[in-house]
Amino acid sequence: MAIDLNTGSGTGNSKIKNSFGLAVAQMGPVHLNDSRVAVVARLLEMMREAASRGAKMVVFPELALTTFFPRYWMDDAEVNARFFEPSMPSAETQPLFDLAAQLKIGFYLGYAELTADGHRFNTSVLVDENAKIVARYRKIHLPGHSDHKPDAPFQHLEKKYFEVGNEGFGVTDMLGTRIGQCLCNDRRWPETYRVMSLQSARIVVLGYNTPSWNIHWSEPPHLRMFHHLLSLQANAYQNGLWVAAAAKCGAEDGFHMIGGSAIVAPTGEIVAQAQSEDDEVIFSNCDLGLGETFLQHVFNFAKHRRPEHYKLITERTGAGEPLSASALKTTQPQE
Amino acid sequence: MAIDLNTGSGTGNSKIKNSFGLAVAQMGPVHLNDSRVAVVARLLEMMREAASRGAKMVVFPELALTTFFPRYWMDDAEVNARFFEPSMPSAETQPLFDLAAQLKIGFYLGYAELTADGHRFNTSVLVDENAKIVARYRKIHLPGHSDHKPDAPFQHLEKKYFEVGNEGFGVTDMLGTRIGQCLCNDRRWPETYRVMSLQSARIVVLGYNTPSWNIHWSEPPHLRMFHHLLSLQANAYQNGLWVAAAAKCGAEDGFHMIGGSAIVAPTGEIVAQAQSEDDEVIFSNCDLGLGETFLQHVFNFAKHRRPEHYKLITERTGAGEPLSASALKTTQPQE
Repeated sequence: MAIDLNTGSGTGNSKIKNSFGLAVAQMGPVHLNDSRVAVVARLLEMMREAASRGAKMVVFPELALTTFFPRYWMDDAEVNARFFEPSMPSAETQPLFDLAAQLKIGFYLGYAELTADGHRFNTSVLVDENAKIVARYRKIHLPGHSDHKPDAPFQHLEKKYFEVGNEGFGVTDMLGTRIGQCLCNDRRWPETYRVMSLQSARIVVLGYNTPSWNIHWSEPPHLRMFHHLLSLQANAYQNGLWVAAAAKCGAEDGFHMIGGSAIVAPTGEIVAQAQSEDDEVIFSNCDLGLGETFLQHVFNFAKHRRPEHYKLITERTGAGEPLSASALKTTQPQE
Repeated sequence: MAIDLNTGSGTGNSKIKNSFGLAVAQMGPVHLNDSRVAVVARLLEMMREAASRGAKMVVFPELALTTFFPRYWMDDAEVNARFFEPSMPSAETQPLFDLAAQLKIGFYLGYAELTADGHRFNTSVLVDENAKIVARYRKIHLPGHSDHKPDAPFQHLEKKYFEVGNEGFGVTDMLGTRIGQCLCNDRRWPETYRVMSLQSARIVVLGYNTPSWNIHWSEPPHLRMFHHLLSLQANAYQNGLWVAAAAKCGAEDGFHMIGGSAIVAPTGEIVAQAQSEDDEVIFSNCDLGLGETFLQHVFNFAKHRRPEHYKLITERTGAGEPLSASALKTTQPQE
C-alpha cells in the first residue's frame, strides 16, 4: 500500500479508499510548575500541525493539561485546586475549542474531571469538528493504589484520586466514522476493545502516562514499551479496528515515562510511531475499510463467537477455582 | 535469567524457581496417504526426545493423526472412516500411551472425535504422566464454512465436519500445575484465554493447522505468521500465563501451512520457537511463578477488573449499534 505523499494538506489520499486522516500528538513532560496556559499553547501548536498534515482529528494524551500528579501524595484540597478541571472548556482550555472550530478538526483530550458535587474522574472527551463535546469517557481500569507508600520512589495514586468510571465504554458517531475512547491502563484489558467493537467502533483512541519503572517489582524496563505496543497491536487485530494512542512522556521533574505513541492498523501493524520523548505529531491516512476484511471472515463475530462459553468473564471478577466437573463435563471420553 | 544447561535431563533447573519442563512437538506435513502407524511412529520419536530433554509434558498439534482433511470436500461416510477416531486410545494410538507411562511424561494430543452416537468434534485431550486421559476439550471457535466452494483452491470445512464444542473451556490440575487447552482458531479470541485465566490456569496448550493462504481475500502471507505469534504473545501477557502452541505445517500434498510453533512466557516474550517446517521438538524450562508478578500487580483481576462494564461480551454475539445514550449517559459534561 504505497502512500501518495503529493496529495497536499487536508485532501486525504486518493489511493486509499475511505481514508481518514488521523493524527496523534504526543507530549513531552509537563512539570509541576508548568502553567495551563503554557501547556495549552503546546497543544495548539500541535493541533495546527495535525490540521496542516490533513488530519480530521488529533488525539492528545491522558491528563494532558498537568503533570502526572498521581505520583505525588497530596491532600484533597491541594490536589483538587491544582490539577482538576471543574469545567470543560474552561478559560484556559477555550483556545483549543476555538482553534478546532476554526480549523474544522476534531480532537480527543484527557483531563482530571471534578464534578459540581465533588466527584473526581480520570476523564477524556471527544470533540467534533464544530468544537462541540460529543462524548465523555471516565476511566474504568484505575491502576495503582490508594494508600501512601512513603518508601517507594514515587506513588501511583489513581485509586486515591479518582473514582471508577460510571458510564461504561461508549462509542460515538463523529467525523463520518464511529469512535471509541479509553484511557491508559484500559488498553491492557481485552474487554475494553471488545465492548467497543461489539458496538461497531472503527477507531479506538486513547491517551496514557506510563512510568518507565515499576514500584512493585524489578520489571525489566524494556518490557514496558513491549507490553504497551503488544496490547495495542493485538487488540487492533482481534477487533478489526484502528487504535491511536498518545503518550505524555519523558522525565517530568525527574520521573521518567515511556513514549511510543502509535497508530496501529486493523492488521496489528504499527503504521506510525513517535520517535522522540517530546512533543511530536504523528499522522496516518487510515483506510477505514481495512478492518472489514477481518470482520467479514476470520473475525466475523456473528458467525464465530460463542458467548455461551464466555460467561465467566462477567460472572467472576478475580481468578478462582475451575468450574465443576459436572458443569464442564470433563469426564473421561467414551471409549 | 541465565539458563543453566548443565543440569542434565529430567532434573529441572535449579536457577529457575518452580521450573516446569515443557516441550512442543511440531509436525511437518501428514499426507493423505500416510498411515496412522507411520504418524504415531513420528510422535513416539518426538516424545522420546522431549523426555530426554527434561520435559514433564509434550504438546502435539491439532488433528495430529491425519492430514488436515477439512481442506477436502468429501461425503460423511468417507470422512468418518478415514479421519475420525471412534475411540481414544485406539490400537494405533495405544503406543503413545504406553510410552508416556514408561517415560512418565504427560501429553496433549489433537484428533477428530467421533462419538458412539455419531457426533463429530475437533477434540484434544490432556494425558497425565500415568497415561490417563484427565481432560477433554472440544473446539469452540470453528473457522471456515460448511458449503462447497468448488472455485476455491482448497476448502476450510470445519463448520461442515465438526459440531461446536459443547463442554466449555476447562482447566485441569495435572503435573503439579493447572493447565487449560484449546485448539487452533481459539487462540485468536481473547475470551478463550480469559475464561481459563479466571479459573487460574498457569499454562495454556494448543495445537493448530493454519493454511498459509486465505481463500477469502488476498491477505499478505507474512501476516499469517505475525497474527499467530501476536495472538499468543498478547494473550500470554494479558492473562499472566504460559502458552505453548504446536503446529502441523509445511506442504501437505501441496497445501502449505505455517510453522512457528512457540512457547511464550507470561511476559509475552517468545522463549522457544520452531525453526523448521518439519518434525521438531522445542523446549523450555518454564518458571511457573513468572506470571504471579503480573497477576499480583498490573493484572490483579480482583482489584482491577470491572465485569459490570463487560456485559456486552456475553449479551451480544455479533457487532451492533451503540448502547443507548441513556444507558451510557453520554450526555454533555456539566460545565
